[in-house]
Amino acid sequence: MIELDRRQLGEVIAAFGALLASGAEAVAAEVKPAEPIPKHDMSDMPANWMGKERIAFLIYPGFTALDMVGPQYMLANLMGAKIDIVAKSLDPIRSDTGLVFTPSLRFEDAKLDFDILCVPGGSQGTLAAMRDDATIAFIRDAGRKAKFVTSVCTGSMLLGAAGLLDGYRATSHWVTKPLLPIFGATPAKGRFVQDRNRITAEGVTAGLDFALSLVAQLRDEKYAQGVQLLAQYAPDPPFHAGEPDTAPKDVTRMIDGMFVGLRKDMRLAAAAAYAKSKTL
Amino acid sequence: MIELDRRQLGEVIAAFGALLASGAEAVAAEVKPAEPIPKHDMSDMPANWMGKERIAFLIYPGFTALDMVGPQYMLANLMGAKIDIVAKSLDPIRSDTGLVFTPSLRFEDAKLDFDILCVPGGSQGTLAAMRDDATIAFIRDAGRKAKFVTSVCTGSMLLGAAGLLDGYRATSHWVTKPLLPIFGATPAKGRFVQDRNRITAEGVTAGLDFALSLVAQLRDEKYAQGVQLLAQYAPDPPFHAGEPDTAPKDVTRMIDGMFVGLRKDMRLAAAAAYAKSKTL
Repeated sequence: MIELDRRQLGEVIAAFGALLASGAEAVAAEVKPAEPIPKHDMSDMPANWMGKERIAFLIYPGFTALDMVGPQYMLANLMGAKIDIVAKSLDPIRSDTGLVFTPSLRFEDAKLDFDILCVPGGSQGTLAAMRDDATIAFIRDAGRKAKFVTSVCTGSMLLGAAGLLDGYRATSHWVTKPLLPIFGATPAKGRFVQDRNRITAEGVTAGLDFALSLVAQLRDEKYAQGVQLLAQYAPDPPFHAGEPDTAPKDVTRMIDGMFVGLRKDMRLAAAAAYAKSKTL
Repeated sequence: MIELDRRQLGEVIAAFGALLASGAEAVAAEVKPAEPIPKHDMSDMPANWMGKERIAFLIYPGFTALDMVGPQYMLANLMGAKIDIVAKSLDPIRSDTGLVFTPSLRFEDAKLDFDILCVPGGSQGTLAAMRDDATIAFIRDAGRKAKFVTSVCTGSMLLGAAGLLDGYRATSHWVTKPLLPIFGATPAKGRFVQDRNRITAEGVTAGLDFALSLVAQLRDEKYAQGVQLLAQYAPDPPFHAGEPDTAPKDVTRMIDGMFVGLRKDMRLAAAAAYAKSKTL
C-alpha cells in the first residue's frame, strides 16, 4: 500500500480532478465551470497511477448495455487510458433494452493494439454475433494481441467462438455457463474467473466486480478503492435472488425456462464456431 | 406471494420470453432465431405482471451513463412498460465517460404523461443542467404529473433545482448529500430513500438497488427476483470502500477533495434554482 503525505495527496487530487473534469468537454460550450481546473505538477503522484492503456469495448446489435456500461465506468476512471467503443460500422447500434449508442471506431480502422478487449453479452443479439464472421474475426485478431481478453455475461460465448477460451478456466451468465466446454474451456466458480490473461465475468452486473478488480491490477488497491467510492459501490440488493441457487426455486425454473431455445441455438452456434476456429 | 402451478409457469415463461425476444428486433433482419417465439395465451399470468407504464429517463451532456443504464436495465424488464430516453433535442449526447447516446424523445414532443421520471447525475454536466432553464422546466413539468419522481446520484440536485424535493426526505451521492437542505429536503439514510412518490438513490451504482425495488413495487417480489436473477445481481465488490465511512480515510479525503470546487458551484446553483422555483 502506498502511503501519501499531504502534499502528495494534493497532487493526486489535482490529477484525478483534471481527469474527471474532462467530462466537462461534453458540456455545452457556453457553460463554464466557475473555477478553472488548476495547473498541477503530477511528478509526486505514484508513477503507477498514470497509465496509457488502450481499451476496446465491442458492441453489436442487441448487446446488453449494462454489460458494457458498468465496466466502462470503472475503466474510464483509469488515468491516461483511452477507451474506444468498437463495432462493425459507425452506425448507431441498438441494445437489447432499446438504448442507442454510437461507436467510436470501426473494425477495419482498429489497429488491434488494444491492451484490454472487453466483450459484453446479450441474448438473440449475441447469438447473431456468434454467427457473424466479421465480428468473430475482430474478436480473434484483437484478442490474440491484447494483454487482457475479457467478457461479461454471454460475451464469453463470443470469446469462445473466436477460439480464445481453449484450455482456459472461465465463467459466463449462469444460463450459458454449461456451454463453455464446447469451446475447450473449463467452467469455474467465481463472480469472475481470471486464468492468465483471460477474465470472464458472470451475468450482467458481474461486470462491475470484474472491472473494479482489473482497476486494482492495473493501478493498485488504493486507486481502485477511490473508484469504488466515486461509484458509491456499496451494493444492497433488496432480495437475494441473484444466483440460481439463492433465488426461490420457481423463480430459477421460470428464468431458466425462458432460455431453453436460446441455449439450444447457442449450443449449435458454439460447436460450429469452435470447429471453424480450429481451421484458422 | 403468488404461487404458480406448472401450467401458469409455462404461460409466464412464454410471456417473459416474448418480452425478452423483443431485443431481437435490434438484430440484423437476415438473422432469424432458429425457434420462433410460440404464440401464447397470457390469461393465466398474474394480472399484475403486465403493466403499461410510460417511463422517461432524462439525459443531458455530461451525464453519468451508469446512473441511467443500471435502472434502465431493470425497468426495461417490466412487461408492457414503454421507456423513452428524453433530451432537449434528438442530437447524440456524450456522457461524462465518453459514451454517445441517441435520445428517443425531445422535451417539446413529450406529452408529460410519464408514470416514472428518472433523472441521472453527473458532475460538471449536472451543474450545467441545473443552470439550464429548459432542462429544469422539463423536470418540473414532467415531475409534477409523474406517479414516481426518481433520481440516481447527483440527479437529486436536478430534482431539487426543479422544486420537487421541497418537504421530502431524500438522498444523493455522498458528495452532494449535504446540499439537499438548500432545496427544502431532509437528508435521510438508505441506499435509496422513498418519501411518498419521490425516490432518490445514492451515488451511481445505487440505481440498481433502487430500480429493482421499484420493479417489486410495480409488480411483486417474485417478479423482481426474476429480474435480479436475469441480471445475476449477486454483487461481490473486491473492496469495501463504497461508502465514505467504510473506505480508508485517505481515500475518502482524496475523493472528497476532488469535488470541493464542484460542490461549491452546485451550492450556488442550487440556491439560485430553488429561489427561482419558488416564483414559478
